[in-house]
Amino acid sequence: MPAAKASIDLMQSTGFDALYGLEFLELTDQVAAARIPVRDELLQPFGLVHGGVYAAVAESLASHGTGLAALREGRVAMGMSNHTSFLRPITAGVINARATRRHGGRTTAVWDVEITDGAERLCAVSRVTIAIRDIPANSSVA
Amino acid sequence: MPAAKASIDLMQSTGFDALYGLEFLELTDQVAAARIPVRDELLQPFGLVHGGVYAAVAESLASHGTGLAALREGRVAMGMSNHTSFLRPITAGVINARATRRHGGRTTAVWDVEITDGAERLCAVSRVTIAIRDIPANSSVA
Amino acid sequence: MPAAKASIDLMQSTGFDALYGLEFLELTDQVAAARIPVRDELLQPFGLVHGGVYAAVAESLASHGTGLAALREGRVAMGMSNHTSFLRPITAGVINARATRRHGGRTTAVWDVEITDGAERLCAVSRVTIAIRDIPANSSVA
Amino acid sequence: MPAAKASIDLMQSTGFDALYGLEFLELTDQVAAARIPVRDELLQPFGLVHGGVYAAVAESLASHGTGLAALREGRVAMGMSNHTSFLRPITAGVINARATRRHGGRTTAVWDVEITDGAERLCAVSRVTIAIRDIPANSSVA
Repeated sequence: MPAAKASIDLMQSTGFDALYGLEFLELTDQVAAARIPVRDELLQPFGLVHGGVYAAVAESLASHGTGLAALREGRVAMGMSNHTSFLRPITAGVINARATRRHGGRTTAVWDVEITDGAERLCAVSRVTIAIRDIPANSSVA
Repeated sequence: MPAAKASIDLMQSTGFDALYGLEFLELTDQVAAARIPVRDELLQPFGLVHGGVYAAVAESLASHGTGLAALREGRVAMGMSNHTSFLRPITAGVINARATRRHGGRTTAVWDVEITDGAERLCAVSRVTIAIRDIPANSSVA
Repeated sequence: MPAAKASIDLMQSTGFDALYGLEFLELTDQVAAARIPVRDELLQPFGLVHGGVYAAVAESLASHGTGLAALREGRVAMGMSNHTSFLRPITAGVINARATRRHGGRTTAVWDVEITDGAERLCAVSRVTIAIRDIPANSSVA
Repeated sequence: MPAAKASIDLMQSTGFDALYGLEFLELTDQVAAARIPVRDELLQPFGLVHGGVYAAVAESLASHGTGLAALREGRVAMGMSNHTSFLRPITAGVINARATRRHGGRTTAVWDVEITDGAERLCAVSRVTIAIRDIPANSSVA
């Protein structure tokens, strides 16, 4: 049952997501959520969470959510564009992220991601466009 | 001599930059460059470098370059917006990034960042907007 | 009563907004809405509404909404960045746009704009960042 | 000879491009340039060129340049995303725009557009992503 397997795998952080500590909370093809505990290794030189962390979690939520649906059809999802706006710094505690799919086409999906701190204040917003492609014949994913 | 000290500090990766392995190669207020050796901890589930890595390096180059000039004036630089487009995947080797300041205003700077692989193929482009602000009176940076 | 005057002026399309036919429906510092009747002069060569029309209405809603509040404080609003994603073409009928302020800081505001067709299908989304600045001493606006 | 015909048509402003006064100066699948004479109908309420004008010219250059190549293969180009950053206002004279293709893939092209005033000062930059699609069977373009 490939869809279930994919679902389980995509909820388990690996590689870069594991490195920065992404914890998936929810993952569907329409909505996805995750949290990241803030630690010193996530900060930039002035003690704020690094902008790349916000972009990374937005990218993961959108691409995993899109990938979930794509894998069911034997296709793959790949990030095309990630536009993250930083509204309020986070310095400690937890980073919460919630992604909502705004558009689901045949070849692209567009997601909006909201990132809040532990007090539920909006700290960053991200718009992520994901491409949906056929799996190349020579891919090890197939 | 604060400017020189800042310059030295900003070339030294700390926090998140150290976590993902950013190595600064050049840092001025107009141009900045860095490299990242690819390792398994930087990949997403399908074996490609995670989109957040590209966004992170772009963010660091633009904000450190802007910060270098801002600190000389007793001000700080903070990321406002990071828009990264992914053009070609990288799976191994090295990630090279080069940032050029396109606009330097009193309150914002806009940078273009080009990210290439070891074969000098363009793999991602990023446009980063950095805010330049006075250091808050209660800041530990001051 | 400058605020009311500003409100009235900003609801009246002039210049470029009048050229492409923007009709304001609602304008506050948090939410703004408008419509544009589609006519041949708004199309690109293949008969779809030109992408610049979507970007223009998003820009106007966000900057007028921000300007409304800024003018009350003797300041002005100026567009910094407009990122519009095109999801579904419109070829006839009406373009509806609704803008919501997501962030209101001292120097910037961030708005999300949704653009729908006459059947209420989501056709474009836009994220607009507006700068809020003091009015220059030599400005004719003052 | 459809390609030549398309080429000629795409250099001729029609619809919205004609409305705001776009004049194509150069159009290839890699580089495109245009100018727009500033007139009152292009301004926003405070006398600056409206942000939608910058977005529109960027969109037209990128989509016409991509369309030129696409039409030769019996395909069409459609805007996916337009991210325009406003750096310096223009109030009179001429708007010059120059677009360069940064990436040309099978399904998308990414363009950078620089917009300058009559004194060759950089006033806006735009990153435009264009989708390349097969012409739908029922399209009047075919």
